[in-house]
Amino acid sequence: MTTQPDILISQDEASDAQETGPGVDKSRWYTDTVINAELADYAPVKGCMVIKPYGYALWENIKDALDRMIKDTGHQNAYFPLFIPESFLKKEAEHVEGFAPECAVVTHGGGKKLEEPYVVRPTSETIINYMFAKWVQSWRDLPLLINQWANVVRWEMRTRLFLRTAEFLWQEGHTAHATEIEAEEEARKMLEVYRQLAEDWLALPVLTGEKTERERFAGAVRTYCIEAMMKDGKALQAGTSHFLGQNFAKAFGIEFQNQSGQLEHAWQTSWGVSTRLVGAVVLGHGDDKGLILPPKIAPTQVVIVPIYKTDQEKDTVLQNCRTLAQTLKEQNVRVHLDDRDNLTPGYKFNHWELRGVPIRLNVGPRDVASKVVEIARRDTGEKIRGVAQNNIAFEIEGLLGAIQKSMFERAKNFRSDNTHEARDYAEFKDILGKGNYFIQCYFDGNSEDEGRIKEETKATVRCIPFAQANTPGKCMYTGRDTARRVIFARSY
Amino acid sequence: MTTQPDILISQDEASDAQETGPGVDKSRWYTDTVINAELADYAPVKGCMVIKPYGYALWENIKDALDRMIKDTGHQNAYFPLFIPESFLKKEAEHVEGFAPECAVVTHGGGKKLEEPYVVRPTSETIINYMFAKWVQSWRDLPLLINQWANVVRWEMRTRLFLRTAEFLWQEGHTAHATEIEAEEEARKMLEVYRQLAEDWLALPVLTGEKTERERFAGAVRTYCIEAMMKDGKALQAGTSHFLGQNFAKAFGIEFQNQSGQLEHAWQTSWGVSTRLVGAVVLGHGDDKGLILPPKIAPTQVVIVPIYKTDQEKDTVLQNCRTLAQTLKEQNVRVHLDDRDNLTPGYKFNHWELRGVPIRLNVGPRDVASKVVEIARRDTGEKIRGVAQNNIAFEIEGLLGAIQKSMFERAKNFRSDNTHEARDYAEFKDILGKGNYFIQCYFDGNSEDEGRIKEETKATVRCIPFAQANTPGKCMYTGRDTARRVIFARSY
Repeated sequence: MTTQPDILISQDEASDAQETGPGVDKSRWYTDTVINAELADYAPVKGCMVIKPYGYALWENIKDALDRMIKDTGHQNAYFPLFIPESFLKKEAEHVEGFAPECAVVTHGGGKKLEEPYVVRPTSETIINYMFAKWVQSWRDLPLLINQWANVVRWEMRTRLFLRTAEFLWQEGHTAHATEIEAEEEARKMLEVYRQLAEDWLALPVLTGEKTERERFAGAVRTYCIEAMMKDGKALQAGTSHFLGQNFAKAFGIEFQNQSGQLEHAWQTSWGVSTRLVGAVVLGHGDDKGLILPPKIAPTQVVIVPIYKTDQEKDTVLQNCRTLAQTLKEQNVRVHLDDRDNLTPGYKFNHWELRGVPIRLNVGPRDVASKVVEIARRDTGEKIRGVAQNNIAFEIEGLLGAIQKSMFERAKNFRSDNTHEARDYAEFKDILGKGNYFIQCYFDGNSEDEGRIKEETKATVRCIPFAQANTPGKCMYTGRDTARRVIFARSY
Repeated sequence: MTTQPDILISQDEASDAQETGPGVDKSRWYTDTVINAELADYAPVKGCMVIKPYGYALWENIKDALDRMIKDTGHQNAYFPLFIPESFLKKEAEHVEGFAPECAVVTHGGGKKLEEPYVVRPTSETIINYMFAKWVQSWRDLPLLINQWANVVRWEMRTRLFLRTAEFLWQEGHTAHATEIEAEEEARKMLEVYRQLAEDWLALPVLTGEKTERERFAGAVRTYCIEAMMKDGKALQAGTSHFLGQNFAKAFGIEFQNQSGQLEHAWQTSWGVSTRLVGAVVLGHGDDKGLILPPKIAPTQVVIVPIYKTDQEKDTVLQNCRTLAQTLKEQNVRVHLDDRDNLTPGYKFNHWELRGVPIRLNVGPRDVASKVVEIARRDTGEKIRGVAQNNIAFEIEGLLGAIQKSMFERAKNFRSDNTHEARDYAEFKDILGKGNYFIQCYFDGNSEDEGRIKEETKATVRCIPFAQANTPGKCMYTGRDTARRVIFARSY
């Protein structure tokens, strides 16, 4: 078990590592935090949840950021039906095998039994590609770059709020291209968009790479993914982008006349991320006190808590707080003044810490007199006293940026601390016997080998990273020579 | 048949009235326009449509405007499950009677028959109020002001793109309040938000008023609505807001402890508008050439069409067009340069007229030399030659505002021209025998009377307008004295 040598363990990260080390169960913590921070609630429908306003506001911020990126890369939003004729699913052999067992089926409508049952979309390749076949005739109709924001349903046995629910919200991109190269580039480009979303907005470092055959999307030629490490050392697949080759184009007859007048099948991609990202933010950053939200997606970036005893103090302090809130609002800071009268400051501190608000401003009578505030950082717990009010918007703006960056760096260090190298299977099992870690290793095993490893250790190949050293080594499982290095981990 | 005296018929409106007068069938025109302008396409699922990128962009602009208004009035977005246990629907007697016949039913999930079938939500009062009962305990938890953007399914027999489809997109607001007065105010406030959306954004004048018992939402105490007139004289219900009283609070047990410590049932509202609004814009403004879009919601506000013959002209003209596009973009004008090389200017004119783009800029070599452009207005067909390029952003901004206002005024005049007064039922039938009109009349008939009138004339009471003269008169149907004036019309 070799810790990567290039990592410096800071005091903070060391204690984090300990807190989330072997044997610590994050599962209970996760559910409690999601419920107590009012991100979601259980629904009276099997495997479904209710996304509460605070959780939905977080999702909206993620969605808005991604929607801009999707449009900036030339895609257009559209909307396709929720219901898919059962026969459509069967047109792509691998696809139906993968999804049919998870489908919810509508058998009756308007009081009558349907002639052909509909499945509630588990993903929309089939119905969208049926339409693409209608829309694509000539090379001039390509590329077709479509995205859809929608709900999908996959009947899951073991569900967990946000991470795995029967119904979830997502976007699904579907594209058709004239050439293989262009489709391949598209699949890679959208994975890069997902990497940017995860790293720049969610402050979650991700590995980018390809899935092995065993973990591939049903119907894809290649599946690319971003994989993040959670605070318990487990991996979370945070987004996937598929190069579909001509599989669906052949199944649905998407043909176009190329510039030489010949008919060809289109080359395709599909790609998606979901409300699972909300779970990723919770599990990727949270601590014992609750959520820690990256400023760029936090529904509330700054909360102001007034502190007073007498009625006179209350008037002075509240008036000052309102001015502060107004100043910050004018600078487009998402600020909230907690002026609830029936609660103590201490209660409010806990309330907003649980909800992960990045910055808290405490304002008492002395602060008002000295024209200063006290700043409390949620991510480090650090307090900065006596910050001048006359420059507050500038200070806050800078601090929000610093927190965003620092959260990313902390998560990156945490991942490095919990990524280990295994030279052989004994070492591999030894590491995973101690807890959840990413394991970097040479691996040239096949799907059956992966199955056996999963059975014995619960770990799977998360990805074959794009970044490969290309130095030869020995497969940790088969002992054969190989240059392929992969990341194994237990995952959500 | 008395035309309202306060209306001046302009040349334009007179010809419009003729175009859409008796006997003219707008149905075929509507469908052709929606398909040809690429707003939507038929889906291979009964009663469903595909919203194509242009139609979806229009919906997104409507949605974004409304979402801001909903948030500005203190509401928060959330998300509730797509599936509703069948037993939930049955808890409110009128509600189940109204919606059960329209439901799509999921009977199987994950390969097994479900113990209790789920209906796909036709509207979410039942599941949302089930959750509200969990969340509301004290008066401090009220008001609860929730909105959801979602898809809903109602099994419709006769469908029409956007106007009536089995699946549609909408927002549904659901609120709970401590007092009857507060809930009543909320229902009225949201109707006012809808009026603003319709009039200020869609440029569609609407009547605001109450529905008769016959047209009331299943489970509501009172239903308020906005009603717009389409270009064929038919009415379109464009949005509804319901005062639910305590009906659902009693059915689902939403009880709170009031400030005196007693348990009370909450008072509630629900309100919604849908993708039907896209259809309203098409039918409320379009002409023989296709769509006419109000600038504030048009996906493209300005299209630039370069006109050239030689390669040298092409270079000069295109370069100038790019500069113009950049200038307008910097002023946040949604501008598109149509630089397609394989199409003639004439083809492009038709293309963008069909799609209703408010302003077209034509730029030829002479315009470039004189540093001017030609402006063509979609709503009036008017052309303004020789507009100086050096002030173009200012000109365009002013013109977009003027078009928005002018479209609203034109629609308002059209409605006045096609609204008539009926003193008795003979006159009423006479008017409707000539075509589709709004009929203003005294009416104190009951639901059975309304049913007979509908059978004989296909017209229904669209609303009892809030604006009442409060002068007494005689019911046009029963002949009895009444002060209640209503609007009758045939409707979508």
